[in-house]
Amino acid sequence: MLILFAAPALWPEYETLLPAALARAGIEAQVVTEADPAEVDIIIYAPSSWLQDFTPYVKAKAVLNLWAGVERIVGNATLTQPLARMVDPGLTEGMVEWVVGHALRHHLGMDRQIVNPGHVWDPTCPPLARSRPVAMLGLGALGLAAARALQAMNFPVTGWSRTAKEIPGLTCLSGKEGLRQALSTAQIVVTLLPKTPETENLLNAERLSWLPKGAVILNPGRGPLIDDEALLAALDAGQVAHATLDVFRVEPLPQDHPFWAHPKVTVTPHIAADTRAETAVEVLVANIARARDGLPLLHLVDRSRGY
Amino acid sequence: MLILFAAPALWPEYETLLPAALARAGIEAQVVTEADPAEVDIIIYAPSSWLQDFTPYVKAKAVLNLWAGVERIVGNATLTQPLARMVDPGLTEGMVEWVVGHALRHHLGMDRQIVNPGHVWDPTCPPLARSRPVAMLGLGALGLAAARALQAMNFPVTGWSRTAKEIPGLTCLSGKEGLRQALSTAQIVVTLLPKTPETENLLNAERLSWLPKGAVILNPGRGPLIDDEALLAALDAGQVAHATLDVFRVEPLPQDHPFWAHPKVTVTPHIAADTRAETAVEVLVANIARARDGLPLLHLVDRSRGY
Repeated sequence: MLILFAAPALWPEYETLLPAALARAGIEAQVVTEADPAEVDIIIYAPSSWLQDFTPYVKAKAVLNLWAGVERIVGNATLTQPLARMVDPGLTEGMVEWVVGHALRHHLGMDRQIVNPGHVWDPTCPPLARSRPVAMLGLGALGLAAARALQAMNFPVTGWSRTAKEIPGLTCLSGKEGLRQALSTAQIVVTLLPKTPETENLLNAERLSWLPKGAVILNPGRGPLIDDEALLAALDAGQVAHATLDVFRVEPLPQDHPFWAHPKVTVTPHIAADTRAETAVEVLVANIARARDGLPLLHLVDRSRGY
Repeated sequence: MLILFAAPALWPEYETLLPAALARAGIEAQVVTEADPAEVDIIIYAPSSWLQDFTPYVKAKAVLNLWAGVERIVGNATLTQPLARMVDPGLTEGMVEWVVGHALRHHLGMDRQIVNPGHVWDPTCPPLARSRPVAMLGLGALGLAAARALQAMNFPVTGWSRTAKEIPGLTCLSGKEGLRQALSTAQIVVTLLPKTPETENLLNAERLSWLPKGAVILNPGRGPLIDDEALLAALDAGQVAHATLDVFRVEPLPQDHPFWAHPKVTVTPHIAADTRAETAVEVLVANIARARDGLPLLHLVDRSRGY
C-alpha cells in the first residue's frame, strides 16, 4: 500500500512512529510525503495541508484526518473518499484532564488563592462537588468521556445533545427545551460540540440568560459555539462569573481581543485536545487495515451531519 | 443516653441535624451542651473545646472527635475513654477534590494561563497524566481515597506508608528506603500523613533532595510534615518547582511568614478537609449506637501510635 502523509508540519512526529506501528501490525505499506496521486491508497491529512483538491486521488480508499475537528475539510466538494476523524485515546485523555482540572479549579475557587496579594486567610470551605451541577453540552466521544470523569469526581452531570441519546447512568436531554432545562440548573457548563451551522452561537444572549447567576463556562470545543459579544456582556453583568476558553474564532487569539484583558476570562492556548502521535498511530494503523480489508472505517464522518 | 456536645463553635451546625439523625436511627438520647460530668454517656469533641480534663466523666463510654486529626487530644493524660477520629465521607470527598484539583492544576500548568499579563499564546501541550508520576505519602482513609481518584485520572501513583501495606492495584512502599524510592521518581508529591513524632519534618532537606528537580509538593495533611526552612531553600534552588500548602505550623498563617509572598508557594486556608455536618452526623450516630451496644468504635484511635 502507498500511504501519502499530507500533513508536513506533523511529519517529524510521525516519521518514525508510523512505519514502526505499521510493521508491528504486519501491514506492508510505504509511507511517503510526496506521490503520484493516481497511486495513493490512503491519505493521512490535517486541515492545514497543501492538499486541497482530492480529484486526482482516484484510487484512495480513505482520508484519515489527524484532528478530531473536520469542519475545514468536510465541505470540500472534491473529497469523495471516506473521511475519518481522529479519535485518539491520548487526545481524549488530555481533554478529560483539561475539563476535570478546570471544573475543579472553579469549583474549589482556586484563583482566589493563586492570586492573593492581600494574603487573605478565608477558611470558608467550598461545597462538595456532589452539590455542584454540571451541564455537558455535547455527548460525542470527548463529551461522554469528560462527563464520566466528572461523575467519578461526584459532580452531578446532565448531558445535552442535539439529537436524543440514551446513555446508562447519565441524564441526557436534547433539543431546545432540553437545552433550557440543562442550562437552568448548571453551575458549570462545558461546551464540547462539533462546529456545524446548528451549533454556531449555541450559547447566545438568550441561552446565557437561562443559566443561574454566577455560572462558569468552560469551552474546550470550538470557538464559534459561543457568541463572543454575548459572553462579554454576560460576564460584565455578573450573569456568568467566569469563562475559561481554549478555542477561539481566530487562533492564536488576536492581541486586541477583549478576552485577553478581561478579568473574568482565562485564555488557554488550544491545548485541551491535542493529538498525541504515540497513541494516534495505533488508530491510524487500525483504520489502514480496515481500508485494506474493505471494512467500514472507525470514526467515519457523516458528511450530511458535518461530523 | 446523655450526649455532651463539647464543641461550642460547631453547635449551630449540629443543633438540629444531630437530634434528627439520632431520632431517625431510633436512638433515645438527649444532646446537651452543658451537663453534670458524672451523668454523661458520650462526649462529642473538638480539640479547641473548653473540656480539657476528662477525669470527672466517669461514665462516658466514648469521646467522638469531630476532626480527623487528633494530635491535640491524643496526649491528654486525663483521657482514658475510647477516642474515635472523624472519618467523614464528606471530609474525604472534599480532600479528594482538593488533591485531584491541585494535582491537575500543576499538571496542566494552569497558573501560566490564570496569570498571563503578557498575553502569551504558547500552544505547547502538557504531557498526559499517565506520564506524570505521583507519590502519595500516607495511605490512611484520606490518602488511599486520594490515591484512587488520582489513579482514575490516569496518574501513576506510588503509595508510601510508615508501616508496610498491601493494597490491590497500588504500588505500596514503606520505611526509609521505600520513601527514597517513592520520592526519587515523583513529579508530584502529596503529604497526607497524621502528625506524630515520626512524621514531623518527614520532608526535610535530605528527603527533598531525593526528588527529581522541578517536582511539585501538595500538603493537605499537617503543617509539621514539612520542614518550612528546607522547603523554602529547595524552592529557591529550583529543586522544588512549587508547593501548594493547606496546613501550617501556625494557623492562620502569620502575615510575616515567607510562604505568603513566595512566588512558588500557594497558600490555601485549611480548606482541604473540613467536616461536613450533613455527613458527619451519620458517623456520630453509628458510633453512638456502637458505644451503647458495647461494640468497638469505628475509627478508634490507637493511643500508642498517636492516630
